[in-house]
Order: sequence, then C-alpha cells, then structure tokens
Amino acid sequence: MEQLTSRSTNYAQWYNDLVLKAGLAEHSAVRGCMVIKPYGFSIWERMRDDLDRRFKETGHENAYFPLFIPKSFLSKEAAHIEGFAKECAVVTHYRLKNSEDGKSVVVDPEAKLEEELIVRPTSETIIWNTYKNWINSYRDLPLLINQWANVVRWEMRTRLFLRTAEFLWQEGHTAHATRQEAEAETRLMLDVYADFVQDILAIPVIKGVKTESERFAGALDTYCIEALMQDGKALQAGTSHFLGQNFAKAFDVKFTNSEGKQEFVWASSWGVSTRLMGALIMCHSDDNGLVLPPRLAPNQVVIVPIYRKEEERIAMIEACKTLANQLKSAGIRVKLDDDDKKKPGWKFSEYEFKGVPIRLAMGPRDLESGTVELSRRDTLTKESVPVEGLSEKLTQLLEEIQTSLFERAKAFRNEHITRVDSWEEFKTVLEEKGGFLSAHWDGSAETEAKIKELTKASIRCIPLDGQTESGRCVLTGNPSTQRVLFALAY
Amino acid sequence: MEQLTSRSTNYAQWYNDLVLKAGLAEHSAVRGCMVIKPYGFSIWERMRDDLDRRFKETGHENAYFPLFIPKSFLSKEAAHIEGFAKECAVVTHYRLKNSEDGKSVVVDPEAKLEEELIVRPTSETIIWNTYKNWINSYRDLPLLINQWANVVRWEMRTRLFLRTAEFLWQEGHTAHATRQEAEAETRLMLDVYADFVQDILAIPVIKGVKTESERFAGALDTYCIEALMQDGKALQAGTSHFLGQNFAKAFDVKFTNSEGKQEFVWASSWGVSTRLMGALIMCHSDDNGLVLPPRLAPNQVVIVPIYRKEEERIAMIEACKTLANQLKSAGIRVKLDDDDKKKPGWKFSEYEFKGVPIRLAMGPRDLESGTVELSRRDTLTKESVPVEGLSEKLTQLLEEIQTSLFERAKAFRNEHITRVDSWEEFKTVLEEKGGFLSAHWDGSAETEAKIKELTKASIRCIPLDGQTESGRCVLTGNPSTQRVLFALAY
Repeated sequence: MEQLTSRSTNYAQWYNDLVLKAGLAEHSAVRGCMVIKPYGFSIWERMRDDLDRRFKETGHENAYFPLFIPKSFLSKEAAHIEGFAKECAVVTHYRLKNSEDGKSVVVDPEAKLEEELIVRPTSETIIWNTYKNWINSYRDLPLLINQWANVVRWEMRTRLFLRTAEFLWQEGHTAHATRQEAEAETRLMLDVYADFVQDILAIPVIKGVKTESERFAGALDTYCIEALMQDGKALQAGTSHFLGQNFAKAFDVKFTNSEGKQEFVWASSWGVSTRLMGALIMCHSDDNGLVLPPRLAPNQVVIVPIYRKEEERIAMIEACKTLANQLKSAGIRVKLDDDDKKKPGWKFSEYEFKGVPIRLAMGPRDLESGTVELSRRDTLTKESVPVEGLSEKLTQLLEEIQTSLFERAKAFRNEHITRVDSWEEFKTVLEEKGGFLSAHWDGSAETEAKIKELTKASIRCIPLDGQTESGRCVLTGNPSTQRVLFALAY
Repeated sequence: MEQLTSRSTNYAQWYNDLVLKAGLAEHSAVRGCMVIKPYGFSIWERMRDDLDRRFKETGHENAYFPLFIPKSFLSKEAAHIEGFAKECAVVTHYRLKNSEDGKSVVVDPEAKLEEELIVRPTSETIIWNTYKNWINSYRDLPLLINQWANVVRWEMRTRLFLRTAEFLWQEGHTAHATRQEAEAETRLMLDVYADFVQDILAIPVIKGVKTESERFAGALDTYCIEALMQDGKALQAGTSHFLGQNFAKAFDVKFTNSEGKQEFVWASSWGVSTRLMGALIMCHSDDNGLVLPPRLAPNQVVIVPIYRKEEERIAMIEACKTLANQLKSAGIRVKLDDDDKKKPGWKFSEYEFKGVPIRLAMGPRDLESGTVELSRRDTLTKESVPVEGLSEKLTQLLEEIQTSLFERAKAFRNEHITRVDSWEEFKTVLEEKGGFLSAHWDGSAETEAKIKELTKASIRCIPLDGQTESGRCVLTGNPSTQRVLFALAY
C-alpha cells in the first residue's frame, strides 16, 4: 500500500489520495466526470438502499423522468433560471456521420435540433410539466414521488464526490393540496435525512433553514442539514425545499379542491447525492485510511488466517471458514480472505486502508487456545478474545463502534461551535480554530455578502433549535434577534 | 376504467393503451423519451433487484462510469463505429446565457466544447479506456463489473418500453486473461438471463447465437434469448457478447501473463433493458389489462372489503386487516384497499387491469361463514374458499399461477415454431400464422438480406440446442447444415 499524505500536511491532498487509493473513485477521460469504482459504489449502494427504504416507509414511490429538459422549460420559473447556475451540458445535434477521410466521425450539421435539450441539472421543470397531466382533483393529491438519477452541472473546478460535473442523487418531488401539508412534507424529509445521516453514516448534523441568498432557486424556504468536517469546514449534507406554488404557477398545475374550486398545487423537493461519500470520508477517516461506520460498511468484519506450513494452512482455513459461517448466521457481513498469493501483512494494511471496522487474525496458537486476535479500525487497538461467544461479542462491538464514531464526531463538532460577539473575534476564531461561528447577524443580504467577501465564510443555516436572543450584528452592530451559524464550507 | 382496445382489433393500439392506462409509462415532452410511472417503475425495480442479486451471486460488482463519451472514442474500434447507429445525442456546448430581451435563455456561443461529447449509447469505449489503467497483470483479472445506467439512442420511431430514445438498462463489462474464460462468461450470463426471464417473468426463451449481420458492433459472437409475443412476433429479450480482443486492442489494454509476457485482454459485455417490460406485457396480458406473474407482481394479493352499513364497515375492515397480517407473515405481498371513497366494483376492475394475480373479496356473509371470495387474474375464475389455512393455500396457488403462466406461454410459443421447407411455405406460414419459422439457410449474408427484403423476417438466432441436419436453403436451394429461426421481430 502506498503512503497516504497526512491530514496535517495537506488535508485536500489527503482526501484525494484516500479516494483514489482506497478504490472509491477516480477522474475519467471526460472533464469533471468521475468513475465510481466498485468499492466506492458498494458503499453508495448501501446508502441508497437505506434511504430508499426510508422513503418508501414514509409513503413515497419511485418513478423515472427524462434525462433531457427542453431549453424553454428552464426559463418558465423566473427565480429558477435566474438563480440556477447556467453551466450545463447542452445537446444541439442528434447524429454523427463519417468524416470525409473515413477515419473518424463528425457531427452531422443537418441533424440540428429545433430546440436544444439540456441534460438535467435538477428535474423540477420537466416533472412539473408532467404533473400537469397527472393532477386534476384533490383526490390525486398528495403525489409523493422520488427519482434516483444522474444529473449534470458543468463545474469548472471539480473534486471527487464533492463537486463533479455528473453526479448521482435522488430527488423527491411532491405535490400537495395545502401549504401546510407541503411544509410538513419539507420538514419530514429533512428529519428523514438527519436520521439517516446520524444513524447510518454516524455524522452529527445541525438542522437549519437557509438565508434567502442561499435558498434553492425557486424555493420559498430551503431547509438543510449541515455537518462539520475534520478540517473545520462545513458541508451541506442534504436539502429539502418548500417550493410554495411557484412551479405549479410556472407550469399551470391546478387542482379542483373539495369545494369544487380551482387552486394551484403546493410543492416540495428534496435531495441528497454522492456528495455524502465526501462527508463520510472527511468526518471519520484518518492518516491510515478510510474509517467506515459498521452499519454502512460493506464488510463489517474481515478474517485473515495466519500460517506457515501447508498442514497449518488447511487447518487454519477450515477453522476460519467455520468462524465466518458462525458470524454470517448472526447477521454479520463478514469476509474471509484466504487468498494464498497475498501475505497477512499486506492484507492487514489493505483492510485497515479500506476501513473494515473489525479485523480478526487467527494463527496456529490461536487455534490451540481457542482465541482470535481482534483489531478495531476506529481505535487501532488489538486484543486476544475467545472464539466462544464471538458472534454476540462482535454484534455488540459493532454497535459500540457505530456509537463511538458518532460520539467522537459529535464531540469534535460541539467543540467547534464557537459563540463570537465581535468582528475581531469572528476573524480570529475563523482563522485560528475554524468550525461553526455562532454569531448575531442583522438579517440583511448586504451584510451576509460583505462577510462572505471579507472572510469567505457563509451563513450555513439559521438553526431550527436556535433560541431567540437579542443582540448586535457581528459586522454592522445592527440589532439581531437570533444567532446564525457561519463557516467556511465545501 | 376506460375501455381497452381489444388485441384482435389492433394489437399495437392495445399495447399502447394498456401501458398508458395501467399507469406503467407515458410519452414525455421530450421527443422519444418516456416517463416511467410509479407502477411501471415498481415492476422494473423488482426485475432490477432480482437480476442484481443474480449478478452478485455470480461474482460481479457494480460500478458507475460517465454519462458522456468523447467523440473520438467512438471511432477507435472500427467495427463498433461502423456497425453502431450514429443516431445519438451530441453535447456541443456547456453554458446558457440570458437572451438579449431577458425573457429566455440561449446557448452561449462562447461556451463551445473543443471536442463534442456523446451521451452514451452503450459504454464499451469509455469503460475499456478506464480498464487500461486498472489492468496490469493477470492478478488483476478477471474484472467482473456491471453498471445500471440510462443510455440514449436517437430513435426516430419510438414505442413505450420497446424503443425509446432514452432507456434504462444494465451493461456488464468483463475482462479476462484467456479466450476460453471470456467465452465461458458470455455463455454464463446468457444462462443467467434465460433463468431470470423464465423463472421470474414466466416467459419461455430460446437461447441462440446471432448471424454475423445481426451481431453487436465490435463483437465476435452475439448470443441472445428470443421470446415470442402473442401477435406472433419475436422479441430479443437480452444479449451477451463475446468481444474477443477487439476493445482491448482499440484501447491498448494489455496484461502481463503468469509467464511474464504481454497479452491483450479478452472481453465480454451483456445487457438487458426496460424493453423487458414490453416483453412482459405482450407475453401474458389480455383484453382486460395487465397479467403479472406472481414472483414479479409488486402486489401478489389484493383484499377488497365489501359492506353497506357503517357497523358492517368496521367489522369488515377489522377482519380484512387480520387476514392481511396473516398473509404478510407468510411472506405474501398483500395490499388491503380499505379506501372508503371508492366502490368495490371500481376496485375490482382497477386491480384486474393492473394485473394483481389474486383478488380476495370479503363481505358480511363471508364473515359469518368464515370464507372469502378468491379470483384469479390469469384465468378470471372465482371460488369461495375458507379463511382457515388461506396463507398456505395462497402460497401454493401463487406458485401454481407462476407455473401456469409459463406453461401457457410455452405451449403458445411451441405451437408457433413451424418447420418450413419451401419458399412458398415460408411466405404462407409467415403471413398466416406468424411465429418462428424453423428453416434451412445457406449461411450467406446476401440470402439473409434478400429474405428480409422480401418478407421483413430476420434470422432471430441459430438455436444453441439445434441439431445438425443437412438440407437445402429455403430461398436459394443451396446446401445447409442446420435450421435457423426466422421471424418478424420487435
């Protein structure tokens, strides 16, 4: 295993090295697009399946809408096109032909589309154009639909998982008869995201609402969950938008209410993406590689047999197989690595690097004494434990590790929420300590922009559990009624 | 429920009506692209999950490769670009800007890509360009990777599920050290497809190999599974390609073998798509709507309570809930429709139309006598059965229905394989009876093309279980050693 740049040397380099060397993802031949490698994809699959289950449990169904959006759709909702990045992939032609020398292909100039198609950067417009035909009466509502899809936003500076031109995500798009119901849905999905990220990814999050300038284009309110990375920068891990009647008005989606009157439909949309992979890595991993929470790890336990002679090999592998089967029966995801072409030392560092929560090594002496060497990835500690009762012990230990990772991250996060009450303090804490700065803000977009310009820190959110408290804006001294959270962010 | 065009009146119209009215899919605002609606998607999800499990059980892993392919990649493998349709979506620009009047958006002419990007019609080229970096030694082989993705082929005449510009599919791409191993993989995946389609979709298939003119562009051999639809036309349900070293040579992918020598890598690729939804519909459904095989049906059983007075309602729903829970405990996917706003008659035709295999109706008299009315969707028969022991009965009946649908389709298919030995017979049978024509062919591409030109029938496959038999070509009278299967095809 090659050496990993240490986090203290260069955090960004450490991250990139880790993603590449742990086999999670890599850059492709197409600018800004990544290849998600099998190990990375197996982790994403587990995230997807768990989220999908939660969506279905809360009454949502999956569907699939077109990859392309007619250009004219994008300008139908004014705030959407104004606020949304115009950097997107544009399809203008639908045919190639052989070049004159016959050695390559060229775009056929005669196959030009009448109206250009945009590769979806998000699907509100095409979906609301479809909902127009699906919704007539209050009986058709609510419509609770989710889509798993790839989307494209032409990013100039890309980073694996964190910001790529193409990424995978889910986008929920719901339609409701009342404002109240759409707002409740928006908040419900924020809770679903928060529970998932905390319970499965073991990442503590702060639920909040975005300021007007940070809102999704076309939304009346954008709710978010914000997480803190080890380098003190914040990462938005998911968003849920209350869209009011904006898209219904743009696409003329009305329903007949129970009194027979026509009304515009109320909407929400919400999404998380492969960006969560970046959050996962930067929350838990260390200079030895990836650290995975047990509930998410594709392999929770790896067993490595240790032997020298051929007679030993047969006995060891037999014993390891028996053990692996016991653990599997107990519902533990276990891998036995009995590959004879690789040395135990190589395997140890491989699985450590790939973040397998627990490693068991078994050698001839263990076989005699009925023990096994158990190593924890999160603490890098080792102990000898009896094979007897190991399933129960490991089941418990995996849960302990899950909790321990969450508590460790939460303690770090809490230590990095600093109340600041002056501009000097704001600048010093941001520069020297990082993390979230809990500060008063006068509520104006100008002040918000000025602070961002001066420090690059943005308002990550107005916390939902924040208390009303009168104070003075950290920059202007104007009155304020609540602290908000500032941070540098991914 | 609106009326469905009968199959005998207009089969194509029946198909289209059914797809729309059963809520499976619809056309979108984007030419040739469909929206897969929630009910249709829930069936596709079950296909996907079952296939995914089979892929993993045979040692494959999922990964994800870019949506876009640099134009130059397509011309690297000569047969690939020559044989492959050039009708594809071409991305030429990466930015929009506001129009001068500010009312719409236009493509920014300054944001032109240096090299155009093609929305993947299939991913051999981008994947083999990636494999170049993943494969060095025989120790890196085999590489057994699958991708679930959307692909785009600019079709001029589209039909829901059967032929759309964008569709969902999986594409497996494997790399091997030897020809033998790559060929074995190609055949293995053909078997995986055949087992899946027969066991889950209850569609009998014929395994075969394509003639040279019907081969995938860049393949040395294309294997396929061919199914027969109710209207006597064939449908290719899945393909598995032995690619030889063609893509390895085009992208310079070599490995060091165990003797230290450099060799080109051997390859296979294989795929099935949302086209399977079309096959499913056209194999089993009838003039009353969809018919779903129980192993695939999202709901295997629906329970409809029948009552008049309010006191009856409460008791009926209570009894139906108890029954639903019993069936769920037995592992049956059951839906209780206790929606008070809809009449039982409406529910009956709704679930019949949506192909739920078994309907149970329970009214006050049933409650007294401890019975329930059971209706089978496949045979449209009804009987009164005791609630006692119903879980066991239904579990068995669902399997019976699964088998019965398969046997019915197989009998129909077998009746529609006709041995023909003269050109007159060929034309008459094709026109009057349809189905597969088992006929001698002289092996030449010219004859194959001539027959297609004269009759529109193509060679669907050379069956793998076909016997060597000397004969005379049905068109030319030239000698032949094996019968092949001709048919009109979707």
